[in-house]
Amino acid sequence: MSEQNEVIGIIAGGGQFPLMVADSIRKQGHRVVAVAHHEETDPELAHKVDQIVWIRLGQLGQLIKALKKNGVQKALMAGTIAKRLMFKIKPDLKGLTLMSKIAIFHDDGILRSLAKELEKEGIFIVSAASYVPELLSPPGCLTRRKPTKKEKGDIEFGWRIAKELGKLDIGQCVVVRRGTVLALEAMEGTDETILRGGKLAREKAVVVKVSKPNQDLRFDIPSVGLNTVESMSKVKASVLALEAGKTLMFDKAEMIKFANRSGIAIVSEAG
Amino acid sequence: MSEQNEVIGIIAGGGQFPLMVADSIRKQGHRVVAVAHHEETDPELAHKVDQIVWIRLGQLGQLIKALKKNGVQKALMAGTIAKRLMFKIKPDLKGLTLMSKIAIFHDDGILRSLAKELEKEGIFIVSAASYVPELLSPPGCLTRRKPTKKEKGDIEFGWRIAKELGKLDIGQCVVVRRGTVLALEAMEGTDETILRGGKLAREKAVVVKVSKPNQDLRFDIPSVGLNTVESMSKVKASVLALEAGKTLMFDKAEMIKFANRSGIAIVSEAG
Repeated sequence: MSEQNEVIGIIAGGGQFPLMVADSIRKQGHRVVAVAHHEETDPELAHKVDQIVWIRLGQLGQLIKALKKNGVQKALMAGTIAKRLMFKIKPDLKGLTLMSKIAIFHDDGILRSLAKELEKEGIFIVSAASYVPELLSPPGCLTRRKPTKKEKGDIEFGWRIAKELGKLDIGQCVVVRRGTVLALEAMEGTDETILRGGKLAREKAVVVKVSKPNQDLRFDIPSVGLNTVESMSKVKASVLALEAGKTLMFDKAEMIKFANRSGIAIVSEAG
Repeated sequence: MSEQNEVIGIIAGGGQFPLMVADSIRKQGHRVVAVAHHEETDPELAHKVDQIVWIRLGQLGQLIKALKKNGVQKALMAGTIAKRLMFKIKPDLKGLTLMSKIAIFHDDGILRSLAKELEKEGIFIVSAASYVPELLSPPGCLTRRKPTKKEKGDIEFGWRIAKELGKLDIGQCVVVRRGTVLALEAMEGTDETILRGGKLAREKAVVVKVSKPNQDLRFDIPSVGLNTVESMSKVKASVLALEAGKTLMFDKAEMIKFANRSGIAIVSEAG
């Protein structure tokens, strides 16, 4: 990052994150080349980068070609790929070769294989978070309200379960209350998991979201945003526990403001 | 079971199962005393037993009193307790003592502790399934359609995940497709898990429901019914995998008929 005038590639999914990262990288004086995904990436990204190439999910050949042609040797992945698309992928020939190599069709499995393919082509994947360190959750209690003793017990319990779940490479979010697991995230996403578990708890659900024990943060970093605490508020959930330094907090200021107003405690602990 | 004219207690939850078990026990020549739960147990149970006492969830003192007064030394648990009630329990004094002993508020934890309390009073808990062995899933493929090779791979994958989940004492049902976990059951129940995972799969989801590795089948035996395959059909799921001899199949004939008509494969394998 300290080198000036590098060319940084952004393999961009949906949401605001690719745009934030692009802004940040350009402010640091680098040139940005984005490979964006049709139907996923915000077209606004075009105005925040030096070059943009649009592909469809699974067009790995196109992706590599775009990065190489623009002199990219260091690239990062940023933004979401809607999981509903995962069963709709129409890979190109290069993509097909990759898919056939992936015995178990896990998120991280695919991304890890993708990174290896790129490395063979001289393109190295770095962590997007390293360009926006100010978004990582700092350790400590971030809200005025601190968890009660009971809630602390639930955080500890939920944390253990979430880490076990992460070992299986499935989800990262667990909703608990009074030592009972109410909801586990698989592919439906964190907000839906919070709403489901929170409704079963009726109130005071504790939401724990952590990184997987073997998670490669270059591919998939746990993230929360204003929508996370808004979902919690809808079901009167009371605590959000995160892993310090390993979770992206989008809209951090708004999140904390909203949490303070709603009586939600947000804590960020070392893994 | 071979002894004639025993008094068997049924600690009854909701659904048809307590009624079926009561019928079966009386046919075997025993006397049946039911302790039924307000708002849960089907009032029809009254006509199928020799004695019925109504209590509220958590009234352990009342439960013990009812069983002892009627000379019960052998009791079984049958039927569901809606999990939404779990945070609404208003235990009596005896129940309160039990609750305070349960550090981790797991389903099985509660039931295991309850069984211990009852044993101290000379009432032994036996398995409900042992009175209705014809409802247990036999080994083999139960439908005309057999799982394809791909589906077999998903069964194996889902089975491994479901057993890991069971080790954590959380849920028993997992929905997968092509080696991806789409939904994990926690407290929302199997039907909701099938619908959620099945929608994400779009079609051909594989549903695996197994017993927990340390599951005490006296307390909680995995069960499926016509509603299970109906939920699967709604989301075009294609395979239901069960653990042979450890899963109750309610409406077995209807289930298989419906599955055959819908192209669903049902397989039952040894754990």
